[in-house]
This record gives sequence, C-alpha cells and structure tokens, in this order.
Amino acid sequence: MILRDETVQTGVRRRTAVLGTGEVAWDAAVVGADDLGLGRGDGCFETLRVLGGTPPRLLHLAAHLDRFERSARALDLPRPDRDAWTALAEEVCTELADGQEAALRLLLTRGTPGGGPTGLATLRPVAAEIVTQRATGVDVVTLDRGTALAAHAAAPWLLGGAKTLSYAVNTAALREAARRGAQDVLFTTPAGEVLEGPTATALWLADSELRTVPPGATGILAGTTQRAVFAGAQAAGHPTAERTATVADLQGADALWLVSSVRGAVEVATLDGRVLPRRPEVTASVRSWLEG
Amino acid sequence: MILRDETVQTGVRRRTAVLGTGEVAWDAAVVGADDLGLGRGDGCFETLRVLGGTPPRLLHLAAHLDRFERSARALDLPRPDRDAWTALAEEVCTELADGQEAALRLLLTRGTPGGGPTGLATLRPVAAEIVTQRATGVDVVTLDRGTALAAHAAAPWLLGGAKTLSYAVNTAALREAARRGAQDVLFTTPAGEVLEGPTATALWLADSELRTVPPGATGILAGTTQRAVFAGAQAAGHPTAERTATVADLQGADALWLVSSVRGAVEVATLDGRVLPRRPEVTASVRSWLEG
Repeated sequence: MILRDETVQTGVRRRTAVLGTGEVAWDAAVVGADDLGLGRGDGCFETLRVLGGTPPRLLHLAAHLDRFERSARALDLPRPDRDAWTALAEEVCTELADGQEAALRLLLTRGTPGGGPTGLATLRPVAAEIVTQRATGVDVVTLDRGTALAAHAAAPWLLGGAKTLSYAVNTAALREAARRGAQDVLFTTPAGEVLEGPTATALWLADSELRTVPPGATGILAGTTQRAVFAGAQAAGHPTAERTATVADLQGADALWLVSSVRGAVEVATLDGRVLPRRPEVTASVRSWLEG
Repeated sequence: MILRDETVQTGVRRRTAVLGTGEVAWDAAVVGADDLGLGRGDGCFETLRVLGGTPPRLLHLAAHLDRFERSARALDLPRPDRDAWTALAEEVCTELADGQEAALRLLLTRGTPGGGPTGLATLRPVAAEIVTQRATGVDVVTLDRGTALAAHAAAPWLLGGAKTLSYAVNTAALREAARRGAQDVLFTTPAGEVLEGPTATALWLADSELRTVPPGATGILAGTTQRAVFAGAQAAGHPTAERTATVADLQGADALWLVSSVRGAVEVATLDGRVLPRRPEVTASVRSWLEG
C-alpha cells in the first residue's frame, strides 16, 4: 500500500519560506504567472538532506551553497546572499526532531521582468520510494542524451554543470524508465559513454577504486554527494578516481551506485537488465561518510 | 529611451486567468512552491498574437491548441480540454480594442504531486523590442546546441518538438547573443546544420523557394507561424519547401527571417556578422498572410 501523504508516515511537517518574507503556509501560492522560473524554467535549485536534532543538521550546506552560486553565475543571476539563504534554510528546518529526516529545497528564479529574483525554501518528508530504494536498490536503464562528451566544453549557453529549473527532460527520462520497468536512468552520449542520472551521480567500484565520471567539460553536474563520498573514502584510505566509462564498463564493475543528497547512496541492482554485483559493506561505509 | 512599463505605451492592460478559477489580479501569486512547473520546468506553453476588435482575433488559435495537445502528450500530461482553454484564452482577451495587439500565453504545468495540473492564461503588451525589431530587423548569431540532427529520432525523452517550460538554455542563448552584440540566435548542430531559434523558426528564400528546416525527426518545434506562412504562400502560388541547410547556405540565401507568433516575420539583418540581402516586399506579404 502506498501512503500518499508522507507527512502521516514520517511526522515531518511540510513548510515553505519566501526570501525576504519568511515562512508562509506550505501550500500557499508564492509566484505569479509572470515569474520566469515558472514560465521559462529560468532559475536554479539545490536539494539537501536534513537530519533532525538540536540543532538540525543541514548536510553539506556549504557545498550546496557553493554550487547554488555557480548555477546562479551560469544563469547571469545575482549572487545568492549566503547569510540570507542560510537563515531561510534554517528557518524551515526548526522543529525537525531527532531521528527524523527531510528534504530541503532551495529555489532561485529570475523572478518577474519588472521585479527582482524569487527565492524559496521548502521542507518536505523524504519520498517513500526513496526510502524503499535505499533498502532494495534500483533497476536502471541507460538513455542517450544526444550530446557528445565534448559538447559543453566551449558552449556555456548549454548550462552544463548548472543545476537549473529546466528539468523537463530529466523527468521525461524517469517516465521512460518506468515504461521500461525500471526506476531510474543513466544518461549516455551517442557514443555510449555514461554521463549521470537525471537527479544523481554515478559511482562505481572497479580495480579497487571508487570511480565517478569527471564533471566540468563533460557538462555533468558536479555532485555534492559524490564529492563528500570521495572525501570520506580518501580519509579512510580508499583510492578514488574520475574516469569516463562505457555502459559495458559499468556492467562489468564490482558495484554501481546512484548517489545524490536526499537518497544518499542507492545500489544499482540491474543496468539495462544486467544484474550487477552489490557490495553492501561499501554502501554502509559510503552512507556513514555522508552523515559523518 | 526604453519604456519599462509597456502598459503605458500600448494601453494594453495585463491580465491573468487560472483554469478552473477564472480571472485574478494580473500579478497575483498563482502557484505554490511545490508546483512542478516551477520546480522542474515540467509543463508546456503556447504564445499567441491577439488583435483587438469585436471580438478580438486570437491568431491561429486552433493550430496552437493542436500543438499544446501534442506537447502535453509528449510530457504524459492529461489532454487539455479545448473548450475550457478556448474560454480561458478568450476571457483575458476581452477589452482589447481595435488597433491594439497583445501577447497571449497559455501555460499548463504538472501541478503539485497531490493535486492536478495547473492551467494559466496571461495577456501582456507586446514587448517594445519586438515592435522595434519588426521595423529594423535583427542581428543573429549561430550557437551550437550540441545535438546531432538525428538525436531526437528515437529518443522521445528528449522532448523534441514539445514546447516545454524548460527554456533555460533558450534564454541563456539569448544572453550569449547579447554578449556578442546580437539580438537573436539560430541553433545549429555540431555539424553546422541550422535548427531553429530559441523562440522562432528560420524561414529563408533561395532559388525562388520559401524554405524552412523540416520539423519532426530533427527535434525542432513545428512552427505554427511557419505553417501559416507556407499556407499563405502556397495559396498565393509561391513555392515552398522543407530543407536542411548549413549556416553558409543561409548566409547565401536571398533573404532570411525569424518567424514566431507574436513577432510575426522579422528580417535577419546579419547572420554571424555577414550582412544579408533583405526583401521587404516578401516580409509584407508574409505578414499579410499571417493576419489573413
């Protein structure tokens, strides 16, 4: 049975706050029809995992604010005021009790043509399907994103590496995965090189190295979670590396994960139907590094 | 001098209406922080030119509603109810007087996870820069969109041909054009084939044919304006054709236009710095076909 209202399940109260205004009713209308975030997907966002406590822990907030700034710069938006955003983020996270977790979203749009940018923070329970996938792993299919590995290198207008609100292709890819009986996606180039998931970074184990696809010139998003995992791995003495890889490479890996802020590390059970080896003890280490 | 408030200049009153609710204050907050149109660019839109009168003329409304339906289908959104959308569109267009023109926007989002889709219609004055460009023409630069001509053929998740709200790359391309001293863009493939503009279709004259890039498998948007122009041309006995073309082909054309609903046909004055021949008498014919 699917519990539609995750609030009932988790006890986490939904909250919404507006930059410059403060908290509003979680489901209040907050943007007008002219807002360019709504009308053009013209803005950027970050999603963080929050662990309840006194005070609540906004995991890797500094790294998220760093990327938020980079996204805003790529979009020629004014630089987000770190203190104001930190305060807004913390405002919706009060009340989160020990043992609770939640998803915090920061959202900056270009706003209306006459007015300034719009800033929002929301707190939501973690989706039930994410909680399930942490336990069961996910079936992943690869989908061609149509762009070569080098497409972004000299083309800043393609907004590679910026976490924009224009996610229609990302959500369409997830619906395509569902049609194929899977729950998630890894995008590839036309040449079959793996890029990233619609909302996650690929991480795999091969030759005793923990690997990921190099961000930057490839246009893929620099994952805050991947970076935290690598920092944890390096501190624990495990070798890490940035490597390009084909789908066949990943199907031959010793284990594969999708990592992102709220889900953490989720094991890939199958990739294009091929059953992958799983390394639950590594999954456990990765998760501990993320919360460490 | 730039008149920031186009309402003063044109006398056109801004209006907003919500599907299922009706008209609201034009600048009222209408969507919540959870709306997937805002948070994911997950939805579709249409923009129409409206000419004042009794009744006002919503140019090519049927063709726009056809494409709105196709976009919704590509996004797995419920089929828009044509009667309801027609009524919503007409509601914001009353009051538009003879001689006035305005831009009507229809916007459909996936809405909130728990609720249904969000539908909006807005009426706005035509931007002053569009009015200027109709008279002066535009300087256009080409920008590589990074995808091959065949990328979309077997990849419906790339949403080729769907007019989605995820326009961050389109607006980033227009900012890149401004940095290069131009006002608009034609996207190309890595191989140098011309695709379309961020908000317009390319139309050119060569070998006495009025030509455009074939939509469909190329992933480019099927232009309602281009189609209306071709219908008018054919009725007037002018040959038309769908052809792929390189940037050099267009630089060697007898004239080049950007066409879209609100701007109509705008002459391209320069393409990547090369001055193009202009055919004002064809421009006049095209505009008359569009209003015919």
